[in-house]
Amino acid sequence: MSDLIDKLKWRYAVKRMNGQIVPEEKLDNILESINLAPSSAGLQPYNVLVIKDKALKEKIHQAAAPQPQVLESSHLLVFAAWEKVTHENISDYIKLIAETRGITTESLSAFQNSINGGILSRSEEDNFQWSARQAYIGLGHALVAAAVEQVDATPMEGFNGPALDEILGLKEKGLRSVVIVTLGYRDPENDPLVKAKKVRRPHEEFFITL
Amino acid sequence: MSDLIDKLKWRYAVKRMNGQIVPEEKLDNILESINLAPSSAGLQPYNVLVIKDKALKEKIHQAAAPQPQVLESSHLLVFAAWEKVTHENISDYIKLIAETRGITTESLSAFQNSINGGILSRSEEDNFQWSARQAYIGLGHALVAAAVEQVDATPMEGFNGPALDEILGLKEKGLRSVVIVTLGYRDPENDPLVKAKKVRRPHEEFFITL
Repeated sequence: MSDLIDKLKWRYAVKRMNGQIVPEEKLDNILESINLAPSSAGLQPYNVLVIKDKALKEKIHQAAAPQPQVLESSHLLVFAAWEKVTHENISDYIKLIAETRGITTESLSAFQNSINGGILSRSEEDNFQWSARQAYIGLGHALVAAAVEQVDATPMEGFNGPALDEILGLKEKGLRSVVIVTLGYRDPENDPLVKAKKVRRPHEEFFITL
Repeated sequence: MSDLIDKLKWRYAVKRMNGQIVPEEKLDNILESINLAPSSAGLQPYNVLVIKDKALKEKIHQAAAPQPQVLESSHLLVFAAWEKVTHENISDYIKLIAETRGITTESLSAFQNSINGGILSRSEEDNFQWSARQAYIGLGHALVAAAVEQVDATPMEGFNGPALDEILGLKEKGLRSVVIVTLGYRDPENDPLVKAKKVRRPHEEFFITL
């Protein structure tokens, strides 16, 4: 069994954390893994909020996400998808490619037209759903990277989205929260699931081999 | 820089592959990483098709996904979300937990009621979108695991979904394809992007630290 599989078997959605802080270097690796996650057309149509502030976590716990890990975590990550994708977002992205690769934006005009055509022809709601999916690729990266760093990570969809967005002022930023993750360390004495066997659909049912 | 970050920087969405076959053990690790991906409530509401058959890949390339990597890949993965989530899906899942953990299904009735209430109250379309997002966590896992195994992986949304679903008989299985991935090895001589610098939004714009 590979080392990665070992670590993915070690991870689980921790229900109680012990308040220990994740070292800066490990946090940086987890964040960099998210930033390196691919996305459709490379646009990365989401942002990630990294919340360490205790008072803010208390506010979120009280009004939006009552799970104890929110308070007991080292950091809370909020994945927030772009509410809509604009012409300007795409032209900023084209500029970023040109700068990064030392080429002209003109040389990218066919690519720009193709993503303009693909994305801007869709409804705002379709683009939001699409952006949310891209954020979930980042989420997948975060969860694997945390396991590799032996940091516990609990992804959660069970929170009050509008309340969280209000607390974080996301609407003003054109963002909407889609999933949150607490980072920290398991509390084996208080987590009832710490020894629970991992449940997964058997391979022969989950995979269809052709 | 961590070994994982190195490998994530090595990976990119390869445009041309060389036909080399991914060894069984590496493929198994990538698939196991997907199966180990967490999902909301643990339901894993999607399947993954693992396609090696050449004639089938040719058919898919011709009718649904014209990118050359489809033909040049070792394996093509198709992530297919459940079109709807039924009462029976949830009760099968409860049975799976009970069997895996050696407990009674009755002891899980509060949990079962809570997921029944959460999931079955939503529209089929909402549940499909939710299932698709869970599949994207699996996608994130697949991409990191492939990088760790030094296998190239190209995720693609640009395909004809209805045509692909028709070829694979997904509708009859209650599935709808949401994203595909080719696994294989880059062809440095023919891939124009092999030396292109990776483009990512700067951390200070992508992350919001609070």
